[in-house]
Amino acid sequence: MASLTIIDIAKICGVGVTTVSRAINNHPDISEETKAMIMKVVKENNYVPNNSARNLKRTDSKTIAVLIKGMNNPFFIKMIDLFEKGIQKKKYSFILHRVDEHQDEIDVANELVKEKKLKGIIFLGGYLSHSKEKLEQLMVPYVLCTVGLSSEFDNYNYSYVSIDDYAESYKMVDYLCKLGHKRIAIISASMRDRSIGQLRYLGYKQALEDHGIALDEQLIRPMKEHLESYSMENGYAVTKEMIDEGVEFTAIFAISDSMAIGASKALLEAGRMIPDHCSVAGFDGLDMAYYYHPSITTIKQPISEIAEEAIRILFDLIHKKTTHVQKKFPAELIERASTGTMK
Amino acid sequence: MASLTIIDIAKICGVGVTTVSRAINNHPDISEETKAMIMKVVKENNYVPNNSARNLKRTDSKTIAVLIKGMNNPFFIKMIDLFEKGIQKKKYSFILHRVDEHQDEIDVANELVKEKKLKGIIFLGGYLSHSKEKLEQLMVPYVLCTVGLSSEFDNYNYSYVSIDDYAESYKMVDYLCKLGHKRIAIISASMRDRSIGQLRYLGYKQALEDHGIALDEQLIRPMKEHLESYSMENGYAVTKEMIDEGVEFTAIFAISDSMAIGASKALLEAGRMIPDHCSVAGFDGLDMAYYYHPSITTIKQPISEIAEEAIRILFDLIHKKTTHVQKKFPAELIERASTGTMK
Repeated sequence: MASLTIIDIAKICGVGVTTVSRAINNHPDISEETKAMIMKVVKENNYVPNNSARNLKRTDSKTIAVLIKGMNNPFFIKMIDLFEKGIQKKKYSFILHRVDEHQDEIDVANELVKEKKLKGIIFLGGYLSHSKEKLEQLMVPYVLCTVGLSSEFDNYNYSYVSIDDYAESYKMVDYLCKLGHKRIAIISASMRDRSIGQLRYLGYKQALEDHGIALDEQLIRPMKEHLESYSMENGYAVTKEMIDEGVEFTAIFAISDSMAIGASKALLEAGRMIPDHCSVAGFDGLDMAYYYHPSITTIKQPISEIAEEAIRILFDLIHKKTTHVQKKFPAELIERASTGTMK
Repeated sequence: MASLTIIDIAKICGVGVTTVSRAINNHPDISEETKAMIMKVVKENNYVPNNSARNLKRTDSKTIAVLIKGMNNPFFIKMIDLFEKGIQKKKYSFILHRVDEHQDEIDVANELVKEKKLKGIIFLGGYLSHSKEKLEQLMVPYVLCTVGLSSEFDNYNYSYVSIDDYAESYKMVDYLCKLGHKRIAIISASMRDRSIGQLRYLGYKQALEDHGIALDEQLIRPMKEHLESYSMENGYAVTKEMIDEGVEFTAIFAISDSMAIGASKALLEAGRMIPDHCSVAGFDGLDMAYYYHPSITTIKQPISEIAEEAIRILFDLIHKKTTHVQKKFPAELIERASTGTMK
């Protein structure tokens, strides 16, 4: 398991180190014959040129990190895939780094910038609750991607790509109201949430108000804090509790597809039919929501567009072609079998 | 966005660099008052000690990499989570690195070993099809975790943690046979597969043979190569094709839960009831399989045990407490609503 150096390769080949280096680096000043002989030895011995050393010589690390909160969310898996491909296409290296729930992402980011000599950062998921001063301490260009930001951040100077969580949530609840539903339960984030969860709740509230439906506290159901947030398990637990309490509702709007699936399971298990006894709507546009039976009505986020735009803005920032840009993409309400007119 | 150095902090505080270093590193030779003053400046200026430099001084990087093939498989997400926590508990850093389908994982591993000064590697998912010589070129201790290995690897010297894919697959098909099913379709891997997919197929074949049921080529259905492997989409496409061709079957065994969900969707969409018209069984034990309606019978892999054992063996190898160990954990057949007696 010993690792060969370029000196070992030179010895085996009976040539100088410079000649080996020329062969490896495709230098023109070496005969094809010598080069073929050296590359055969390199291959046979599985010699890997020491990139650490090579990187040290370069002044430029060309590395982008994606910092993610909420790894278990299937919604992010697809997005990470798109980031990796997009960043590699730009000939930059890609580092995926998870931030724990209790960690401060700005501190983690600045440490990574120093250790890995990052050129830029994409923050994915979670939420930012930092002061303007703290955000300004970030030492490299960055883009916030589907990161929750409440209105207090409006006067901040940052780059941001997402959908309009408030408007899309409004769209879904407005749709349910137009189907005739008046008792629409929401499986929401914690009421202390100041990010995406809050925006989706506010969209729900406004849509009900615009349809002249009074808010009913019994129908506002934050996900359970002791269970994984936005998960199937959470949607199931919340819905089962509502059923057990005998609360009346004819539709459930869960603010993630995973929770909508859990909610559906609780309903079906209790013998309630979807959508005949209760309509169910989710949010995100996961494959799973389509393959569920019945297929679940949802808000489909334009994942590819969001990822591509985040990369585009980040590289514009790196190359100083732009100042901060905030971009919101429209999402699509996809009507499926899980929602129907109020009977 | 400029980054302060320890010298800048010393200047601001009006003390020497050594004093700042003592404050940061909790050295006893500094007054509490001076330390508090320096730490206030450190905090206000968001100074991050340069860990790159600190790491260079250490001879020991203490980093473990997890190399993964098949990131999109929900089965791995949970496992990555367990690896990250387990490795950090051992006070080692954790690097997650994806290997593309077309990349050679041994080459990628050896490059990472050099660049990141790795102490060990866990290979997760995918399959190894390397020569013994190539495997022996790996320069650090490693453990293969749920990596597919066919019988030709039996005489190799490596560490391995997984379930017994052949035996568990046999268990499921034997169970379906005992329910009275004779026309059991399998959604398998490609017939060229020499890893987990092959083992699960061989278990199916042997169980049928032991029940005196002849193999029927019409019922052996490899997943589509142009679609993501082991995915819901793939299970859906394969099942829809079988239905459209008018092939007769009373049970489907899909070698992943995701494909079992896709298969269920195709059946339900075509108006076939589960399990009255057709039983469906999966493999892996994903949450999703439980929340599907009807809940899907599956083989539940002991994910926590597998991850913990892989970490334990890797650290034993690093500390030279063991030579190579191969460990197979039993998995559990969980009987749910998607399978029933043949009618």
